[in-house]
Amino acid sequence: MNEDAEQTKHPSHAPSELRQDPVSGEWVVIATGRAKRPQDFASAPQKRATPSAYPCPFEVLFPNAHSVYARDGGTNADEWLVQVVPNKYPAFVGGACPVLREVGPYRVTDGIGFHEVVITRDHARPLGVQTSTEAELVLRAYQDRFRAIKADSCMRYISVFHNHGPLAGATIEHPHSQIIATPVIPPDIGRSIAGSHAYAQTHGGACVHCAVLRHELRAGERVVYENNDAVVLAPFASKTAFELRVMPRTHCAYFEEAGASERRGVAEALTVSLARIAKGLGDPDYNFFLHTAPVGPPESFSHYHWHIEIIPKTAVWAGFEIGTGIEISTISPEEAAAFLKNVIV
Amino acid sequence: MNEDAEQTKHPSHAPSELRQDPVSGEWVVIATGRAKRPQDFASAPQKRATPSAYPCPFEVLFPNAHSVYARDGGTNADEWLVQVVPNKYPAFVGGACPVLREVGPYRVTDGIGFHEVVITRDHARPLGVQTSTEAELVLRAYQDRFRAIKADSCMRYISVFHNHGPLAGATIEHPHSQIIATPVIPPDIGRSIAGSHAYAQTHGGACVHCAVLRHELRAGERVVYENNDAVVLAPFASKTAFELRVMPRTHCAYFEEAGASERRGVAEALTVSLARIAKGLGDPDYNFFLHTAPVGPPESFSHYHWHIEIIPKTAVWAGFEIGTGIEISTISPEEAAAFLKNVIV
Repeated sequence: MNEDAEQTKHPSHAPSELRQDPVSGEWVVIATGRAKRPQDFASAPQKRATPSAYPCPFEVLFPNAHSVYARDGGTNADEWLVQVVPNKYPAFVGGACPVLREVGPYRVTDGIGFHEVVITRDHARPLGVQTSTEAELVLRAYQDRFRAIKADSCMRYISVFHNHGPLAGATIEHPHSQIIATPVIPPDIGRSIAGSHAYAQTHGGACVHCAVLRHELRAGERVVYENNDAVVLAPFASKTAFELRVMPRTHCAYFEEAGASERRGVAEALTVSLARIAKGLGDPDYNFFLHTAPVGPPESFSHYHWHIEIIPKTAVWAGFEIGTGIEISTISPEEAAAFLKNVIV
Repeated sequence: MNEDAEQTKHPSHAPSELRQDPVSGEWVVIATGRAKRPQDFASAPQKRATPSAYPCPFEVLFPNAHSVYARDGGTNADEWLVQVVPNKYPAFVGGACPVLREVGPYRVTDGIGFHEVVITRDHARPLGVQTSTEAELVLRAYQDRFRAIKADSCMRYISVFHNHGPLAGATIEHPHSQIIATPVIPPDIGRSIAGSHAYAQTHGGACVHCAVLRHELRAGERVVYENNDAVVLAPFASKTAFELRVMPRTHCAYFEEAGASERRGVAEALTVSLARIAKGLGDPDYNFFLHTAPVGPPESFSHYHWHIEIIPKTAVWAGFEIGTGIEISTISPEEAAAFLKNVIV
């Protein structure tokens, strides 16, 4: 099919389209037959705290911080901007390399790993209103912890995620991200790696994410934002309304290897995306997370392409989604992109 | 390892255990280091409507109902108990067999399928307070539609699910289930079928669900309820706190082939489970759904074992869950089972 004449309308009278993610193989339903206008997805106004609303545990510098990043570019405690601290209620803790054991028909291993919190200083300034310089510092803090945790040979994957608001699972309002390192490769990551590997095998070693990026830049209709280093897309097979993906332009499997220019470009793209979601959709709760290559020998995962996925909480997953893994989205990524492209922040 | 001396405590100081589902291969984290007591999971009281709260679109018999089940065992319209009707805002509609097409790097197909609603008569009586005779009629209605839809050779999977309450995605409060048939096998089903097939291949054709059932009946600690035809388990690798699985004792891949005795046993187990969740956990919202073999040549899927999964809405999935596919549960299935086993309904 001619890519320039891409046909995204339904050729039949079907109220929806089933679209497959070319990396994970997952199917989604874009059910625009049940369509709402982009504005109809706007959240009810969120209750966000003011800076002095209550004493917040994250407003002080932790004495046991793994790392501190200060305003002057150094580590002056009074001027701290970003700190990384151990999670007080960790789901995983350090320890000897866990051993997989069999219990009847099951496989079990201990929750040995890392669980850390990346905190930015200002209580009332979520990432979407921070400068890209501040956001770049957050990405740098992630990278430094990646390098430190990678030195632990038991870990197979390092996950970075950010929960904004209670519907997105944030129990503390103060802006923070979390880092969880696990001794197994999580299922979603395993599937994406397998899909990326399969594409490379059948395309002379090429990267499926690079192919998607080229296609999207040509097609244009799902591009929300771009700068020299990064592109923000509404994914063709979006699992959620207004889902966005921040893709670095340069192929690189390993997030922690991204240089200063990529960090700046991605930080800018991330803050613009979060700001447009907040302004365009009534400040909804959201999650974002990094997808990057697992920890291991570089030659196995070099086909992968690290990126950030942003999932606004605009819908509830119901029995069909939970029972089948197929999400139904009632706005197309083309409409979502057209809307978010024009939000001025 | 000796199954009778099953060791479920953590041998190390780890605050959690990673457990793998033996069918889907998914990993979950049971993080009892962050434990709450079962009572702490109780929902805030839900606002449920009274029968006469407002005129409900589902309280009348639809003229275009696919099927009607009445009190007298016949189809007397005045005495209707269960009706199956087309969804007014379908995500899928009937049509010619859809063709998979390529759009740049993507695969797309039309949303051709079925989308129906199974309605029970009484507005204020959710399935958990219905008699098992009434629930058995609901299962019979599902089965009849399965057989009718199977006659459409385009369909690859028939999904049945039930959303109870707004947090579970129910937009209409009146008790109802939905049936969605799709021309593709959903990803979660595909993975479970693959896992079941792989087990059969390496175990002389044996069923992995039957092996799990035998293990659980011997271990006992995750069994919540049993009758002659069905067993209710808190799954070893529960994705959600208080998740329950209703397993028919007799091996059968295809839900629609279950006989009257299984239907009655499963209906009883389902209503008891829903009633205990409602009473024990403060009437939380929940989803349940059927997992059964895809539509297709029987010889491919006979290794599978149909069952029902119940997912109470006791937690929010956050960035880690959404980004990795690993769910963190803060109560173990052993504690959940011990609690739900003793709820008197």
